[in-house]
Amino acid sequence: MPKNAFYAQSGGVTAVINASAAGVIETALKQKRHIGRIFAGRNGIIGALTEELIDVSAEPIANIRKLKHTPAGAFGSCRHKLKPWDKDPREYQRLIEVFKAHDIGYFFYNGGGDSADTCLKVSQLGEKLGYPITAVHVPKTVDNDLPITDCCPGFGSVAKYVAVSMREAGMDVASMAKTSTKVFVLEVMGRHAGWITAACGLATEKSGDAPHVLLFPEVAFDAEKFLARVDQTVKKFGFCAIGVSEGVQDAEGRFLSESGLKDSFGHAQLGGVAPLIADMVKRELKYKYHWAVADYLQRAARHIASKTDVEQAYALGRAAVELAVKGHNAVMPTIVRKASKPYRWDIGVAPLAKVANVEKKMPRDFITADGFHITAKCRNYLSPLIAGEAYPPYVNGLPDYVVLKNKPVKKKLAEGFVL
Amino acid sequence: MPKNAFYAQSGGVTAVINASAAGVIETALKQKRHIGRIFAGRNGIIGALTEELIDVSAEPIANIRKLKHTPAGAFGSCRHKLKPWDKDPREYQRLIEVFKAHDIGYFFYNGGGDSADTCLKVSQLGEKLGYPITAVHVPKTVDNDLPITDCCPGFGSVAKYVAVSMREAGMDVASMAKTSTKVFVLEVMGRHAGWITAACGLATEKSGDAPHVLLFPEVAFDAEKFLARVDQTVKKFGFCAIGVSEGVQDAEGRFLSESGLKDSFGHAQLGGVAPLIADMVKRELKYKYHWAVADYLQRAARHIASKTDVEQAYALGRAAVELAVKGHNAVMPTIVRKASKPYRWDIGVAPLAKVANVEKKMPRDFITADGFHITAKCRNYLSPLIAGEAYPPYVNGLPDYVVLKNKPVKKKLAEGFVL
Repeated sequence: MPKNAFYAQSGGVTAVINASAAGVIETALKQKRHIGRIFAGRNGIIGALTEELIDVSAEPIANIRKLKHTPAGAFGSCRHKLKPWDKDPREYQRLIEVFKAHDIGYFFYNGGGDSADTCLKVSQLGEKLGYPITAVHVPKTVDNDLPITDCCPGFGSVAKYVAVSMREAGMDVASMAKTSTKVFVLEVMGRHAGWITAACGLATEKSGDAPHVLLFPEVAFDAEKFLARVDQTVKKFGFCAIGVSEGVQDAEGRFLSESGLKDSFGHAQLGGVAPLIADMVKRELKYKYHWAVADYLQRAARHIASKTDVEQAYALGRAAVELAVKGHNAVMPTIVRKASKPYRWDIGVAPLAKVANVEKKMPRDFITADGFHITAKCRNYLSPLIAGEAYPPYVNGLPDYVVLKNKPVKKKLAEGFVL
Repeated sequence: MPKNAFYAQSGGVTAVINASAAGVIETALKQKRHIGRIFAGRNGIIGALTEELIDVSAEPIANIRKLKHTPAGAFGSCRHKLKPWDKDPREYQRLIEVFKAHDIGYFFYNGGGDSADTCLKVSQLGEKLGYPITAVHVPKTVDNDLPITDCCPGFGSVAKYVAVSMREAGMDVASMAKTSTKVFVLEVMGRHAGWITAACGLATEKSGDAPHVLLFPEVAFDAEKFLARVDQTVKKFGFCAIGVSEGVQDAEGRFLSESGLKDSFGHAQLGGVAPLIADMVKRELKYKYHWAVADYLQRAARHIASKTDVEQAYALGRAAVELAVKGHNAVMPTIVRKASKPYRWDIGVAPLAKVANVEKKMPRDFITADGFHITAKCRNYLSPLIAGEAYPPYVNGLPDYVVLKNKPVKKKLAEGFVL
């Protein structure tokens, strides 16, 4: 007898998490021997806890297809971690009630490291509480910090966005430098790992190309060394373009945006490392500056998504369903790199226990010895991930993104659930 | 006898100013009866003053063609205004020396309102100082604030960028709003006129679509009214996306980023209205926020340029040369709107004296009565300007933008010029 499937999105959304959703749903629809109806959780695991399920089968198939070119989380996401078993069994008992009521036997969770922990806990419902379920995690994170998999869906598209943006803004500054702006600072995401900052570096193809300086969270910020490098760059090339991670830290491991440095500049809640860095340049070197903070623009930028990223996101969604119907529980499909030039990849599988709550940092040999740029090895790793364009269709000059009907499934349980 | 031509770029650069350059150069190359060699000024009018000319004829024609898809200013730009005749004749005498030395009879200046003033002054060299020259201005400005012309090259592409980015980021926030970010603020350019802020509004196609609130420089900022609207929007739709002009002002006409308000938040040099607005929302309404400052990213974003904008930029470059060889001096080709639905446009011509130093503001009836969004009339005006995509070619996942050789022309004058 087929069992119903539950799919949900968790954590920060990306330009391609909906491509994974399309991969899961389109594949599940073909598995009629194993999978009955497909439900999506409204706002991740919260939808399962509150019994707010979406009837994916009621969605026109054309809409599901459009998910492949639509950014953000079509079913809503959440930041919610299940508490440990022994601390609070209430959430687990509730999940089992909801799953039983809707005959759910497959659980697909689409998220990063924290969400992998949630998926792992759900995968243990059978073993620990006697409710048999097959739980497979679908990797997703712009931070590219999941272990085992060669890369994470969502990252390649952010990487492409920041590399393209840095190239474009760099050319802009170069044009203006003679009489106006000489220093440009772009702040990018990645609080704990410098993958996105590194991707800015792809824009540099020959000496003098922007960006000239990258500030990684992995390299302790040294103001003196940094200012000397900026000054030297402006004197040599006429301008200096800087990519800075939101998570850049001082030698004591404090975020620059929260360190003592900050107090002399402004109010902490205003946030933003880019204005702080730019202000430092202005005060110490007297160069005119501009700064940008890409924030959500970078991770939502489906209009300039990496084709490789879109394909991998979809393939991992499909693989998750294929693994599940073969009976694999507590696993996550991964990207396995076969070769870099030309790039070839395949799908592998990792046990969730080795994925949950583990952060993959950038190897030190991906950063140049001076700490300000990426190495050839890093470029070799990153370059294939931004390859190819996968433009969405446009109507009236704007991308034609789908907003799903998201028809609610009728609740079966008498009681609600307070989070 | 043909005369040589001088072309230069001035003021803030755009995603399509090089398309105008291509239009000027490709057309001038065909006018062998009128135009001999083509020189570009390195960094705008400064190149003429310092005799730093670039030999455009020495540039491979394939490179000139690539200008059509390359952002920023290929010859370098400047912010430099000529002083009035009676105040300082030195610059004008120098221009004539350089023009004489290089047999320059045509002057094409590509810029906004300030640059139109420079072009107008150069156009008077014949009448006032006896050096005959034909000067034609090529319009360019992301601010869309030039008079007479229906729109300005550069604006359509920024408009498309901010509308696309707002749509994407809005969908991102909508996904996160249940447990995380509820308010998103995007700061865009346009210090004196709200055209770019208005363009954000194109992303709204039905009730509930981002952006929900726009803050224009034309509408005095009223914190109480603003906060009430944000709160109401979050309660109704679950989230609120806000587009704010860098030039938003309080009732006394002070920029918010320089007003008394600012002092209670942080240090002025940190700049950025977006963090200021976001902080206000956090303090008063307690909603979690994110903010982005697009800065140069928006005006350099050739990767998502408007096809209409690229075509108009090229056409105006071409028209400038055609006007010049017909003997029109002190003019600027313009965009004339023939119809909005379907959009039809043609090239017109305006006397420079009516263009220089005149700023076109947004009509009040382009902004809704409550001051927080755009009207149907505004949408009707803006919509055609972002129509069509004109993607650049890509190599290794990155746009293949050209960097010109920019071969210097040998100097003929014994003396240099101190700016």
